[in-house]
Amino acid sequence: MDVDCYSTKKSGRAIGLILARGGSKGIRLKNVKLLAGRPLLYWSMHALRDSGVVDEVWVSTDHDEIERIARDGGALVHRRSPEVSKDSTSSLESVMEFLNVQQPQCDIIVRTQATCPCVRPEHFTDLMEKYHAFGYDSMFSVVRLHLFRWQEVSPGERTRAVMFDPNNRPRRQDWSGELYENGAIYVTRTELLKRGIRQGGKAGYYEMPAHLFVDIDVPDDWPLAEDRVRKYGYNPDTKHVSNNTEEDLVDKTDLPMGKTEA
Amino acid sequence: MDVDCYSTKKSGRAIGLILARGGSKGIRLKNVKLLAGRPLLYWSMHALRDSGVVDEVWVSTDHDEIERIARDGGALVHRRSPEVSKDSTSSLESVMEFLNVQQPQCDIIVRTQATCPCVRPEHFTDLMEKYHAFGYDSMFSVVRLHLFRWQEVSPGERTRAVMFDPNNRPRRQDWSGELYENGAIYVTRTELLKRGIRQGGKAGYYEMPAHLFVDIDVPDDWPLAEDRVRKYGYNPDTKHVSNNTEEDLVDKTDLPMGKTEA
Repeated sequence: MDVDCYSTKKSGRAIGLILARGGSKGIRLKNVKLLAGRPLLYWSMHALRDSGVVDEVWVSTDHDEIERIARDGGALVHRRSPEVSKDSTSSLESVMEFLNVQQPQCDIIVRTQATCPCVRPEHFTDLMEKYHAFGYDSMFSVVRLHLFRWQEVSPGERTRAVMFDPNNRPRRQDWSGELYENGAIYVTRTELLKRGIRQGGKAGYYEMPAHLFVDIDVPDDWPLAEDRVRKYGYNPDTKHVSNNTEEDLVDKTDLPMGKTEA
Repeated sequence: MDVDCYSTKKSGRAIGLILARGGSKGIRLKNVKLLAGRPLLYWSMHALRDSGVVDEVWVSTDHDEIERIARDGGALVHRRSPEVSKDSTSSLESVMEFLNVQQPQCDIIVRTQATCPCVRPEHFTDLMEKYHAFGYDSMFSVVRLHLFRWQEVSPGERTRAVMFDPNNRPRRQDWSGELYENGAIYVTRTELLKRGIRQGGKAGYYEMPAHLFVDIDVPDDWPLAEDRVRKYGYNPDTKHVSNNTEEDLVDKTDLPMGKTEA
């Protein structure tokens, strides 16, 4: 959807928002579950907070323990209604409910997701720099992947490659791949969000390294996320670029899925 | 590329082939490196062998240790030439060299890759059943992923979503996703391969579960592969459907990347 909304006021006050309900499917109470010794929500929340790109970080939740973790991390808490805390609720509906209820005075909403725990402060600052420099209305993070797609057909039919010649397929070094939304960061002008648009107007992307493509959905995703967070995640206690050493992380023996050390 | 090659002789003798050179980039000597206590090559080679869909399993290599692992697993070994053992060599070139030199008497080549260690015997048998039932000329494995792609644009330009409406995006339960080649299995009529075609004629796909989408390319892929192999990989000693217990695996303390237990 293209939206004509090129406002002259491109900059302005930005606030952060993380949607984190208690009733997550796939992994029970995943936002609270310890990942590399910290609640899942901890990682992206602290990266956003310490990036300095927002005046406030809000967590929208329906759950007491998530509220406690949010407040411990210095976030403000929006207690969302049961109506927007269902499995069927879209993130856009939850964002709009937050805006309607809290009426935050801001021009830009910067969202991140607990399920993308490898996001780091510099990703937010780099993205916002481009957002302002190019006058975008909305921006989001992507990763570059080299994947080959095939047409879905009925059983027994002949399939065809989508967008490449399978018998003369590009090698990785000869093909720049394609850009895939990774769910880590969404920045949108508040004005657009109020109209139900999260990626519209002049929409741009910010490319993150592909190895940071971690999006926790099912239990099988947990060990990968844990490995990547330990290597690349942002630890607010050390503020190291990477390499969270064992000493940096408390409770590290409490591995949530009990699988990583299998 | 579409190829008219509907032969009346659809079935026939099948042989297996795994390309495994020593000079792999990304991870040094990865085919030999221990994954969950066994050389990487071990997993897919044994799954292919024990599937029973091929009369022989061949490993094409330029490396002594890989040759030893292959012979230990009951495979035949093709010592490939340096000309098709380069970083720039395509898999198709290596396959064609194997056919030219060994002149195997077979109608079908069944390929798997060491870098996809989660493949199991039943994937080969299921795929071959469909291959014969539907009279395919070539077939390969895919996984179904739900990913959102965006158009690549110059810095500062406006991007657009590819194939979906970002402000009315389908939820996972409402969208069947797309099919991505996962590299685990390629079956092709020998006649086609000799003509330089690996996915052509009447080409079909076989869908594997998405959590088995493991393709080892860089060191960061190793911990995920190890976790998935332990959970879902085929262990020829136990022939269990999954759950490779610690007792099943020898040398399990020898974790190749030294990262999984970080």
